Amino acid sequence: MNKFLKKLQNSIKRNKTLLCIGLDTDYSKIPEEIKKKSILNSIFYFNKKIIDATHSLVCSYKLNSAFYEAAGIEGIKALKKSIEYINRFNIPVIIDAKRGDIGNSSKMYAKFIFEYLNSDSTTLLPYMGIDSISPFISFKDKFSFVVIVSSNPGGKDFQYYGPKSRPLYIKIINKLKNFKNIGFVFGATNPEEIKKIRKKNINNLLLIPGIGTQGGNLKKSLKYALLNNSIGIFNVSRKIIYAGKGKNFHNDVKEMALYYSNMLKIN
Amino acid sequence: MNKFLKKLQNSIKRNKTLLCIGLDTDYSKIPEEIKKKSILNSIFYFNKKIIDATHSLVCSYKLNSAFYEAAGIEGIKALKKSIEYINRFNIPVIIDAKRGDIGNSSKMYAKFIFEYLNSDSTTLLPYMGIDSISPFISFKDKFSFVVIVSSNPGGKDFQYYGPKSRPLYIKIINKLKNFKNIGFVFGATNPEEIKKIRKKNINNLLLIPGIGTQGGNLKKSLKYALLNNSIGIFNVSRKIIYAGKGKNFHNDVKEMALYYSNMLKIN
Repeated sequence: MNKFLKKLQNSIKRNKTLLCIGLDTDYSKIPEEIKKKSILNSIFYFNKKIIDATHSLVCSYKLNSAFYEAAGIEGIKALKKSIEYINRFNIPVIIDAKRGDIGNSSKMYAKFIFEYLNSDSTTLLPYMGIDSISPFISFKDKFSFVVIVSSNPGGKDFQYYGPKSRPLYIKIINKLKNFKNIGFVFGATNPEEIKKIRKKNINNLLLIPGIGTQGGNLKKSLKYALLNNSIGIFNVSRKIIYAGKGKNFHNDVKEMALYYSNMLKIN
Repeated sequence: MNKFLKKLQNSIKRNKTLLCIGLDTDYSKIPEEIKKKSILNSIFYFNKKIIDATHSLVCSYKLNSAFYEAAGIEGIKALKKSIEYINRFNIPVIIDAKRGDIGNSSKMYAKFIFEYLNSDSTTLLPYMGIDSISPFISFKDKFSFVVIVSSNPGGKDFQYYGPKSRPLYIKIINKLKNFKNIGFVFGATNPEEIKKIRKKNINNLLLIPGIGTQGGNLKKSLKYALLNNSIGIFNVSRKIIYAGKGKNFHNDVKEMALYYSNMLKIN
């Protein structure tokens, strides 16, 4: 079994939940009371407090690269340091990077994400075709989630293009479903699409964002994602990480994480 | 007129060419003779020598983010420093980042590219829809090239999906063509598609990769890109930046740049 999948299986067994917390840390939203002298230390400390409070309530952490890049070099250092910290708890890490380029360049992105940052997994955009995804697939121990149906309103602009019986997103899935280290991103805002692919016996691991601030349907998405003994993991970011205020913000973070962890309980 | 477009207009007038050099600097391909103690200084020095040798032969420089990220923090520092150096010559900079995420995250990527790195322009992937592109459009002084028909073989996997008269890529163009700070990426490997959109009176600025190592058709792409008094700029990366060897590698780089600069001459 793929190393990421094995690690995920273990963390699910240990913590009995499908909750993935999204550490999309925006420097400007960190409580002033806990800010350190450097941006690096402020972001890392904020993440560390959340990880300390929640590592037994999750199956994985997802870190969206955009938020760290926005803080520049210090942000990327904080990203790397946060991943190292999560590794102590043996919880799998997903870098939500949504990359995708011609093969020669995608190889470089894969190096950054899987080697330099030492992430277990990442997310990719499929627009440039299979050869833009292959360099990630070549990392046999790692895992990549390809965005299929996204949780934002604009997701509908192009992802459903084509005949109703065979929209673009189904074509993409058919090209990728047989790779053992490929999963799919499906927004919880579109549970019927999750049902549709499970009914077609497409049983790849799903990464499902959109149940927090974005208002996606948790119950339906959960029910459908688990059809055919398949697995889906559910990401919540803002709703959990900004749940608290002030010096002891992590207490409210923990409470909110517990709420979602229970909603996503699995035995 | 948009600030990037104005800057580009000036550099084209000054240097009389549509050549864009792609500084896709792979640390492992830098001549050993010029390597410095740090990765940062090695990459920066390699770029500096190329910029010094070619800044009167180009209309712009494109830096592919993937290659800098692959070298980690040092690489990203070298990226920032290279952009600062190019700015001395008043040549517009494109960060080839191919980003795209839900609005909240795309906003962060735009911050990284347009504010932190202070790039004039970037490239984007359209899969997640218009609201994933809007945060970039909001930077009125900046410019974004959306990937439409890419130069890699896998480009054909999904970009042509749908009815023959209205493939996916045409649908994407129609949603974006009216924004004044949006251009399109078209691989020179597909010149007929460039002709097709110009014939439809779609006259946005084009960024055209694929004429170097990838073997695209320069003459046809050039002819079609310039229809209706429109403009296309042509990127060459590997074929130019790795043209030389040893301590004086930049002499051969200059010669190769001159060759392409002349091929892409404009008055």
